[in-house]
Amino acid sequence: MMMDRDAFSQWMGIEILSIKKGSVELQMTITEVMTNGFKIAHGGIAYSLADSALAFSSNTYGIQSVTIESTMSHIKPLKEGETIKAVAKELQLSGKFGRYLIEIINEKNEVAAVFYGTVFRTGKEWIIDNGQPTQ
Amino acid sequence: MMMDRDAFSQWMGIEILSIKKGSVELQMTITEVMTNGFKIAHGGIAYSLADSALAFSSNTYGIQSVTIESTMSHIKPLKEGETIKAVAKELQLSGKFGRYLIEIINEKNEVAAVFYGTVFRTGKEWIIDNGQPTQ
Amino acid sequence: MMMDRDAFSQWMGIEILSIKKGSVELQMTITEVMTNGFKIAHGGIAYSLADSALAFSSNTYGIQSVTIESTMSHIKPLKEGETIKAVAKELQLSGKFGRYLIEIINEKNEVAAVFYGTVFRTGKEWIIDNGQPTQ
Amino acid sequence: MMMDRDAFSQWMGIEILSIKKGSVELQMTITEVMTNGFKIAHGGIAYSLADSALAFSSNTYGIQSVTIESTMSHIKPLKEGETIKAVAKELQLSGKFGRYLIEIINEKNEVAAVFYGTVFRTGKEWIIDNGQPTQ
Repeated sequence: MMMDRDAFSQWMGIEILSIKKGSVELQMTITEVMTNGFKIAHGGIAYSLADSALAFSSNTYGIQSVTIESTMSHIKPLKEGETIKAVAKELQLSGKFGRYLIEIINEKNEVAAVFYGTVFRTGKEWIIDNGQPTQ
Repeated sequence: MMMDRDAFSQWMGIEILSIKKGSVELQMTITEVMTNGFKIAHGGIAYSLADSALAFSSNTYGIQSVTIESTMSHIKPLKEGETIKAVAKELQLSGKFGRYLIEIINEKNEVAAVFYGTVFRTGKEWIIDNGQPTQ
Repeated sequence: MMMDRDAFSQWMGIEILSIKKGSVELQMTITEVMTNGFKIAHGGIAYSLADSALAFSSNTYGIQSVTIESTMSHIKPLKEGETIKAVAKELQLSGKFGRYLIEIINEKNEVAAVFYGTVFRTGKEWIIDNGQPTQ
Repeated sequence: MMMDRDAFSQWMGIEILSIKKGSVELQMTITEVMTNGFKIAHGGIAYSLADSALAFSSNTYGIQSVTIESTMSHIKPLKEGETIKAVAKELQLSGKFGRYLIEIINEKNEVAAVFYGTVFRTGKEWIIDNGQPTQ
């Protein structure tokens, strides 16, 4: 499955809470090595979680999809030890492109970051196994 | 200095090639743990490098600046073992906000990703040591 | 009210279908002068409608709010004579910033464009009259 | 030429100051009908000028290119009567996509807005006449 071969998502300790066509819910915990000079998670951590959520949700149709454009707002600091979720929702899907909104939710159930991403659907197929693409 | 206390930038192996007011040039090498299911760098790696470049360049004035908004285009895949650079340029700076363009350059000297980011300048000061903010 | 003094929104023929705290629904019809060289609406038209929706929805709290950052995806062409809607939804609101998702819906009820915008809340107050800010 | 058939760009009074492969410089003046409730240009005006600059510069190669994604920062208010410029620069061009940075410059020669846009190159050709695409 996609997650099994994604070394960086595994390094982050990402777990898949749920997955279905066009959406996914992921979870991870901020560790010390993920923090920046302000002792909160480096901005790249929330982005990486969201980008994994985009990859996992957009690839559920069996068509290889790659992120081409993305926008992220950083709203609340994520602290070491905090467990965060990414909740992905498909806004639009057509032959060549798909657009997804992904909210990063903190432990207090607040929106801590918002990610909006566009994928390009290459047209190459892959096999779906247990709801996730294999390679 | 900022870099010394940024655990995640250190984990990525980021080196500062040059730094001056409003700009910075960073370098790092893609390792296996940074790759995704496609055996190329996870999208979060280029973003993390760019976001570090944004933090380092926008904080050179001694005013604490935090990323609030960012946009990233992923253009070319970054391969394991490849050494990449981030080149940050300040487009605009005012009292409360600053905007920066950061290009991720691959080993062939091509633009592999483009990051456009906005920082909010909190007004808190810190001491600059050797061109970098201390904390 | 805000709309009454917004000359460009009036020029576009924007109507307010509904408005409440943090959200708004607008409608307008594409006229010939709004088209570009491809005989479809110029990209600036969908953006202008969305930006009005952002202004109207974010200013419902009586705190002057201005757009600082925005992202727009153009998905489907909008034709001359077509009546389109903008549906704004507040994703996050804090003291200084608010983030909104605005979908542009075409006559076939499809998502024709997606706008994601961030406002800066200046702290200046104004009087709300009939759900809309006065000036 | 593209400009001749673009009714909305003509309505805005856009003039082409210079055009060459991948770049363009445009100029226009803010009129009263373009203002919003704050008596400054509606955010859609700067965006529309930038989007025209994106269309004109990306279509100089004779391959039909359409805006798919765009980001705009609004930095300084544009006043009625002010003459503004859009300066477009190509950051990256490949078979399917191109990325452009467009700065909106005010009368004081300050960066008043920044636009970052991505075009999809459809592969359809058209004839270039006097540096501009015909249709």
